[in-house]
Amino acid sequence: MYLGLAQINPIVGDLSSNVTKIIGVIDEAIDQKVELVVFPELVVTGYPPEDLLLKPQFIADNLAALDKITKACKGIAAYVGFVDKKNNKLYNAGAFIVNGKVVKIYHKMNLPNYAVFDERRYFSEGDKPAIAYYKGVKIGLGICEDLWIEKAPNVKNANKGAKLNLYINASPYHLGKINEREKLLKKKAKAGKAYVAYVNMIGGQDELVFDGGSMMVDPKGKVIAACDQYEEELLIFDLYKDRMENEWVDEHEEIYKALSLGTRDYVNKNGFSDVLIGVSGGIDSALTLAIAVDALGKEKVHAVFMPSEYTAHQSYEDAKKICANLGVKLDEIPIKYTFSTYLNNLSPLFQGKPVGIAEENLQARVRGNYLMALSNKFGWLVLTTGNKSEMSTGYCTLYGDMAGGFAVLKDVPKTMVYKLVEWRNSAKEAIPQTIIDRPPTAELKPDQKDQDTLPPYDVLDAIIQAYVEENKSLKQIIALGFDEATVKNVIAMIDRSEYKRRQSPPGPRITKRAFGKDWRLPITNHYR
Amino acid sequence: MYLGLAQINPIVGDLSSNVTKIIGVIDEAIDQKVELVVFPELVVTGYPPEDLLLKPQFIADNLAALDKITKACKGIAAYVGFVDKKNNKLYNAGAFIVNGKVVKIYHKMNLPNYAVFDERRYFSEGDKPAIAYYKGVKIGLGICEDLWIEKAPNVKNANKGAKLNLYINASPYHLGKINEREKLLKKKAKAGKAYVAYVNMIGGQDELVFDGGSMMVDPKGKVIAACDQYEEELLIFDLYKDRMENEWVDEHEEIYKALSLGTRDYVNKNGFSDVLIGVSGGIDSALTLAIAVDALGKEKVHAVFMPSEYTAHQSYEDAKKICANLGVKLDEIPIKYTFSTYLNNLSPLFQGKPVGIAEENLQARVRGNYLMALSNKFGWLVLTTGNKSEMSTGYCTLYGDMAGGFAVLKDVPKTMVYKLVEWRNSAKEAIPQTIIDRPPTAELKPDQKDQDTLPPYDVLDAIIQAYVEENKSLKQIIALGFDEATVKNVIAMIDRSEYKRRQSPPGPRITKRAFGKDWRLPITNHYR
Repeated sequence: MYLGLAQINPIVGDLSSNVTKIIGVIDEAIDQKVELVVFPELVVTGYPPEDLLLKPQFIADNLAALDKITKACKGIAAYVGFVDKKNNKLYNAGAFIVNGKVVKIYHKMNLPNYAVFDERRYFSEGDKPAIAYYKGVKIGLGICEDLWIEKAPNVKNANKGAKLNLYINASPYHLGKINEREKLLKKKAKAGKAYVAYVNMIGGQDELVFDGGSMMVDPKGKVIAACDQYEEELLIFDLYKDRMENEWVDEHEEIYKALSLGTRDYVNKNGFSDVLIGVSGGIDSALTLAIAVDALGKEKVHAVFMPSEYTAHQSYEDAKKICANLGVKLDEIPIKYTFSTYLNNLSPLFQGKPVGIAEENLQARVRGNYLMALSNKFGWLVLTTGNKSEMSTGYCTLYGDMAGGFAVLKDVPKTMVYKLVEWRNSAKEAIPQTIIDRPPTAELKPDQKDQDTLPPYDVLDAIIQAYVEENKSLKQIIALGFDEATVKNVIAMIDRSEYKRRQSPPGPRITKRAFGKDWRLPITNHYR
Repeated sequence: MYLGLAQINPIVGDLSSNVTKIIGVIDEAIDQKVELVVFPELVVTGYPPEDLLLKPQFIADNLAALDKITKACKGIAAYVGFVDKKNNKLYNAGAFIVNGKVVKIYHKMNLPNYAVFDERRYFSEGDKPAIAYYKGVKIGLGICEDLWIEKAPNVKNANKGAKLNLYINASPYHLGKINEREKLLKKKAKAGKAYVAYVNMIGGQDELVFDGGSMMVDPKGKVIAACDQYEEELLIFDLYKDRMENEWVDEHEEIYKALSLGTRDYVNKNGFSDVLIGVSGGIDSALTLAIAVDALGKEKVHAVFMPSEYTAHQSYEDAKKICANLGVKLDEIPIKYTFSTYLNNLSPLFQGKPVGIAEENLQARVRGNYLMALSNKFGWLVLTTGNKSEMSTGYCTLYGDMAGGFAVLKDVPKTMVYKLVEWRNSAKEAIPQTIIDRPPTAELKPDQKDQDTLPPYDVLDAIIQAYVEENKSLKQIIALGFDEATVKNVIAMIDRSEYKRRQSPPGPRITKRAFGKDWRLPITNHYR
């Protein structure tokens, strides 16, 4: 049987362009003699459609879109994700279409309502498994979460006697997830003595990145075909004959590509052509610039350097060098005079008060204003450059360096920033060694270093991982071998920075728990 | 039977202060010969605890807190909301305690996972109703949502033969909800031929306001006792003898008090003593100032007027007058020179480009920076002044007038702003008539009026209600009698402003659907 795995990149809410893309793939599959083509979960609407699902007109439009897709399936079968509506209830559904007719509809039985998922907000659970018969093959129909629930009754039943199980997915990326999926699929295939197809979408959707990695596993648990990660692809193969070799990309390439795809799709899908980055001469803005150039092309990326009296000459040299290496023009706006008008105007009110955080933040906010003015004037999206270590501890200025549309490194801990820079430099140096070697500094007061305020980044990032990603308690983190005062201090910084995070731009999720949909801590919160 | 309805204001995560407060009420109830005292839902943790519930230590601490409360119930019964844990599952639970022992635990069977609620993210559903017997009375135990599910089996069963049904609640306010609750309770009481107690919390928690309004309804459907709204109270009465008169506050007082309580609790529970407001001479900042003064006291409220070259003299007069009326000192910072340094620095980059939105936003952002500098220096929380009509259409500047910690009018449509001002002025004029009479203007360019950009506010607010609160489609809204081009324009403005709302501060929810937890629209969204 000739199968097609259609790993495509739909746009949330863009029903007509999604239909056009899906029908285009179906037409190509027909040309290529494909017998069954499989699309991702909710491919008609994009994923996650969130509260668009509460609009009755949106549901109706999605059903009309499925009709068009159904009619396009001439002489071919397709399994397509859409939103079904029955008796005023909504279902996350898959339509099995054969030659212009929907022959079976499966309603997802296991609805994830944890982590970044809110499916029970919208959908009712399906109450029975679904089997399709096609060209003499018994085919089990599944959707995403069904695969992950070990003891889900439907998985068991649907597998029974099926020779081929189709799982359609909108499975967001996090580091190492591709290996989790592969392991799970192999187990399912062997247990059910059946082929298992896994079709995922690719693309960025706000904070989520869908990394693709669609694959087919044979009943012996061997991957016999796999799509490239992070790319749209219609993968065609003969289920019973073709055997392809496959290797997933390594950890740092995986993260870098996820950040690039997330950034490119946020920019393009939101109708921007160009981006703007405040380049400081530090490593975070350097990496952000490299990712932006790789994602969008150097001609779409603009950089501005905004020195103050605390800016070292080295910063300027490094900013120039990174821009030269990447082929990006660097503009310069000194903030000194603007900053001094604020201080002059404030001096009667600030009288007798020591210089402090207000003055530091003000400099960052002046820079934020310049970036936003350029953004407003030229229609460029501002990319912010803060990393996860800063977002965790609040070592960043609201409306200052946090001002912008997309936070590329929001979920990348500082220690990982260095590793990604090393990986990016490994082919050809882009980020100057002087940037890598220099101790991190915000340059908002004389001789400032990050480590005056924060613990060493390897310690900080490990505590953040334990507290943020693993919900560990103070005692548990101390038991990992960290100093009690340090852990207390880091937890306090994380807890009291919630109000900042709530007003931060979205950024691509790459860890198991990012500061986004899967981080719902109250701002008003006295738990310590 | 002497009953106590304990309508209290817990703090999310503050287990020890919540326990102290609960035990204080129990002690008072014991002194007053109360036989059964009833507390709100999840009173031990505060509501909603959100992802604190994912921390195992938090659950353990909450169970320890319940133990302390249990021991305090000497010679008295209490029904207390807490988080139960059984077989590694969490339950939204109520403990019925008699004389120092938990005699019955009820696990909430109906978990809301819509609107602002995410209970299925955390909790498992209880699988059976619970009845407690106390002093010869059969008592049905319920929690919040159980009351609202018409056909919930447990409600039916639990009611069967029970003479008294207790519903403990964390029921957030929206306009008119108290009447919905009363209607429902009367129906339940009559249907079950039983007394029904409704105990709600009060207080602000981020965007939510809990308005109290706890009450007891007799089997004939009459309210026989009721707490004041928006106030902490231990209401004591003899179930079979006392009959109290009750009247709820009217619509405008209801909203005004919800805004005041939401603001006061956000400020105080987050450890601020004072607030700062940029007063423009317009009606939104005038109302915000009045609410802040009523909520916190005039000595805690600071105001600053920041004129530009486009500021009318009338604005200055009005700003001074509202501050004088409310007893607030008004500082003044002109933004002219700061603004001009930006323009000077940008002029080489802006060369040949017409003056436009970049320059308008820049003025708002300069003001935002001044407010935040004062906030950072003096530790004052900045209250923003934008209303729901602006938040809907994006008629506001990100990092400009949107910069601050709490957005008092975020969910108040402009037409309601006028009504609230009228109500506030009805006792004693606070907001000068000149402010009310003057056409609204952002004063960011010469002769600017809101209505140059927006449709008249009565039209705009009606379209916003239909689209935002009621999920109506373009066609449906036009069918209500609005001009097609206007509706299209408003919907487009709402859709494309999602990125701004995502970075806005929280504000108190007063409508059925505010821009907060119950508005989960993707930023990247092509549905039109």
